Amino acid sequence: MSKKALYAGSFDPLTLGHLDIIRRASKITDSLVVGVIRNPNKDSMFTDEERMEMIRECVGDLDNVTVDCFSGLLADYVRGNGFDMVVRGLRNVSDFDSEVQMAQLHGVLYENRTETIFMITDPKYSYISSSMVKEVFGLGGKIDSWVPEKVLEHMNDNESQEEK
Amino acid sequence: MSKKALYAGSFDPLTLGHLDIIRRASKITDSLVVGVIRNPNKDSMFTDEERMEMIRECVGDLDNVTVDCFSGLLADYVRGNGFDMVVRGLRNVSDFDSEVQMAQLHGVLYENRTETIFMITDPKYSYISSSMVKEVFGLGGKIDSWVPEKVLEHMNDNESQEEK
Amino acid sequence: MSKKALYAGSFDPLTLGHLDIIRRASKITDSLVVGVIRNPNKDSMFTDEERMEMIRECVGDLDNVTVDCFSGLLADYVRGNGFDMVVRGLRNVSDFDSEVQMAQLHGVLYENRTETIFMITDPKYSYISSSMVKEVFGLGGKIDSWVPEKVLEHMNDNESQEEK
Amino acid sequence: MSKKALYAGSFDPLTLGHLDIIRRASKITDSLVVGVIRNPNKDSMFTDEERMEMIRECVGDLDNVTVDCFSGLLADYVRGNGFDMVVRGLRNVSDFDSEVQMAQLHGVLYENRTETIFMITDPKYSYISSSMVKEVFGLGGKIDSWVPEKVLEHMNDNESQEEK
Amino acid sequence: MSKKALYAGSFDPLTLGHLDIIRRASKITDSLVVGVIRNPNKDSMFTDEERMEMIRECVGDLDNVTVDCFSGLLADYVRGNGFDMVVRGLRNVSDFDSEVQMAQLHGVLYENRTETIFMITDPKYSYISSSMVKEVFGLGGKIDSWVPEKVLEHMNDNESQEEK
Amino acid sequence: MSKKALYAGSFDPLTLGHLDIIRRASKITDSLVVGVIRNPNKDSMFTDEERMEMIRECVGDLDNVTVDCFSGLLADYVRGNGFDMVVRGLRNVSDFDSEVQMAQLHGVLYENRTETIFMITDPKYSYISSSMVKEVFGLGGKIDSWVPEKVLEHMNDNESQEEK
Repeated sequence: MSKKALYAGSFDPLTLGHLDIIRRASKITDSLVVGVIRNPNKDSMFTDEERMEMIRECVGDLDNVTVDCFSGLLADYVRGNGFDMVVRGLRNVSDFDSEVQMAQLHGVLYENRTETIFMITDPKYSYISSSMVKEVFGLGGKIDSWVPEKVLEHMNDNESQEEK
Repeated sequence: MSKKALYAGSFDPLTLGHLDIIRRASKITDSLVVGVIRNPNKDSMFTDEERMEMIRECVGDLDNVTVDCFSGLLADYVRGNGFDMVVRGLRNVSDFDSEVQMAQLHGVLYENRTETIFMITDPKYSYISSSMVKEVFGLGGKIDSWVPEKVLEHMNDNESQEEK
Repeated sequence: MSKKALYAGSFDPLTLGHLDIIRRASKITDSLVVGVIRNPNKDSMFTDEERMEMIRECVGDLDNVTVDCFSGLLADYVRGNGFDMVVRGLRNVSDFDSEVQMAQLHGVLYENRTETIFMITDPKYSYISSSMVKEVFGLGGKIDSWVPEKVLEHMNDNESQEEK
Repeated sequence: MSKKALYAGSFDPLTLGHLDIIRRASKITDSLVVGVIRNPNKDSMFTDEERMEMIRECVGDLDNVTVDCFSGLLADYVRGNGFDMVVRGLRNVSDFDSEVQMAQLHGVLYENRTETIFMITDPKYSYISSSMVKEVFGLGGKIDSWVPEKVLEHMNDNESQEEK
Repeated sequence: MSKKALYAGSFDPLTLGHLDIIRRASKITDSLVVGVIRNPNKDSMFTDEERMEMIRECVGDLDNVTVDCFSGLLADYVRGNGFDMVVRGLRNVSDFDSEVQMAQLHGVLYENRTETIFMITDPKYSYISSSMVKEVFGLGGKIDSWVPEKVLEHMNDNESQEEK
Repeated sequence: MSKKALYAGSFDPLTLGHLDIIRRASKITDSLVVGVIRNPNKDSMFTDEERMEMIRECVGDLDNVTVDCFSGLLADYVRGNGFDMVVRGLRNVSDFDSEVQMAQLHGVLYENRTETIFMITDPKYSYISSSMVKEVFGLGGKIDSWVPEKVLEHMNDNESQEEK
């Protein structure tokens, strides 16, 4: 029976750390959905559509990966789509505590039909987060070793549009 | 393409915490091998064969789970059998640090062909370990909420034989 | 000499994790005060009075437990009422660091007349927090395994009133 | 109803960190027993009797503290003596993980009749352990800011006897 | 070749914990700059100038320490001034994770020309933070064991001015 | 005044993680001593002299680095040689706790004349330890990405001699 996994996040923007987890998760499951969390309230850099588009551009070579978007309770989206597992990246001990809490909470909400699994972020990306990328970019710092090339292009485009 | 996972350990003896990970891991993969680590030097309670036998008795209802035994470098066994992933249970932050180290080490030894994935131990079993079970049992304490019934029978048999 | 303990918090709302600590703390002291922190600035789900009332409904069977309310510096309330100890629940390592800081700070403010003691949250409630309960409830998720029945009734009442 | 607490350990030897916990624990309970764990197998610096004697010399001014000795399962000793609580000192995060495991294990063994409570070690003693004291003493280092004066006398006596 | 270090922070206000790190860092380097981070957006208790002035008053006896102020990306300030090392105080495990992330991020931004080094905060100050000092002070608590005397004077002055 | 640092360890054998700390530490101090801890009791792979020789071969290009050997209490060696600082590598949270304890202990033994400073291990070496290198090597695994080339040669030489 075919196994189906979800990797969910805001991806505002997608980092090389995220992309590393996507590539590795795609190898251990039959199909992987990258689920972009809609967040109309949060002040995001990119729209839901832009975030989905950027991810699609970066995972084009991975046959079993698709990109989707959802809002509301993660558990409702997971049960509605029958995922066998939800993949999470773990970077460090601080992540660990909040992720354990979320995994236990979701164990209840998933009614034990879906498992949360963790992959350790590659140490060379373990210090990267989307918010850090945005902060350094906003202050004029170099971010090209932290985001995929296509994401960097979108960020530069975004900025030059805002300046007009 | 069928996905194949390994869950390795000493299992001396199998605890309810181990069994919970086996059951949950069996749901996210096509086939799961429970790999008993041979250890002729260590002073173990059960022989390799007894440990394999006890696990088989406890996973009889799980169609895609088999039990095997290996010695030497875990990485050699993993590459020799073409596992797609190695499953590890995470109980707490102390586990986390050593597991991250092992996962990074193995990432190199596996030549990135096998992924290490983590599942969080059910909180009701998170304080259980095989060594703790043996210690409490040795001091005459009750261990029936920590090991499967069949394992408890073997432990009691073992003890009554030793007393003869 | 009779020993007197305080268990303080926002309790917006009381969870089963809080209630577990209250029950266990009541067993090790002569009298236990559950102290609700007034917080007029914070956007709370329930008023101070509602929170006190809900706690009273849930601890009715515990003879040595009373419910009170305070504002300002915790240390002033503690010294003003001559508590021998302040009870805190510890859920995980992240809690630990901030709790150690608070305990050391309070050691100074209490002038060493009051001790902070910690009890480990029952693992089956260790992932629950009031804020998480409110978030899942707000998104329509099931929360009945996380709060006492009486609290759930108040939350449902609250919501149906708001909808009118 | 009078409350009774246990503070157990090897105390080989008693440190100023242990003594700080004993003083503070004696303030929050009606009676406190300092329970020395007998350990005939372990290569200890002092005999059970010497360890008990040294503790008695250091707690003479605390009316509600007595010293006892036990062997076997801690849980058996706790249930046999009807303790309401077992006091543990927490020094740091590494302590935390193993202590949480032990507290959960003991919660089961105590059949929920005894509570484990934690007090944070005074930061000025948080780096001290009996084994560290012995190691530095053995290498000729100064340990007078880590153990009570009476313990230091016994350690010096012990050493001069061995040299004869 | 003379070695040059930076210790940067908001210092709103300087605490005894900060001052301890400054004194100790001044001993291991030829010159130390205390760099006050300008933050026009954040609601601070003291202006940049007041914060610089207070630090100068407290480090007057340290010949190799100067005080400066900067805005924008820390990495730009560090490279622009050719610092050999950036000193950070570590208080606890929660600090550790975020500091490791920042150190790795800065390793890239510094192009490996500047090293981040950590000193452990003296345990008697490890629970102190500027925000905690302000909170306790605002609620009328005693803070004289947490900030230098000169800082306390400025805080009292500040408050009496606001009351006029 | 010239600053002098110590980086001490067993270095049995030197890893690329150690070498990375040596290179980075040499940049922030005037002179750096790599201090090999003599340990006649421990079953080591290399003699003190071999370990010193291997380090010398690897740091030949660093003008301000020398190699030494010591036994007994680290604090005695540090005071006897007037080091301004002792450099330690931090790999992860488990390291952190024991290192904080040691730093506080040494703060007392050094009589505050020497500072302990920490550098974060490069994430690409953070999972490496000497004992892990020996274990994988002993089981026939590839270790060439974890130790300097010269160390690998010595390990291979060592092994072929033992086989004779």
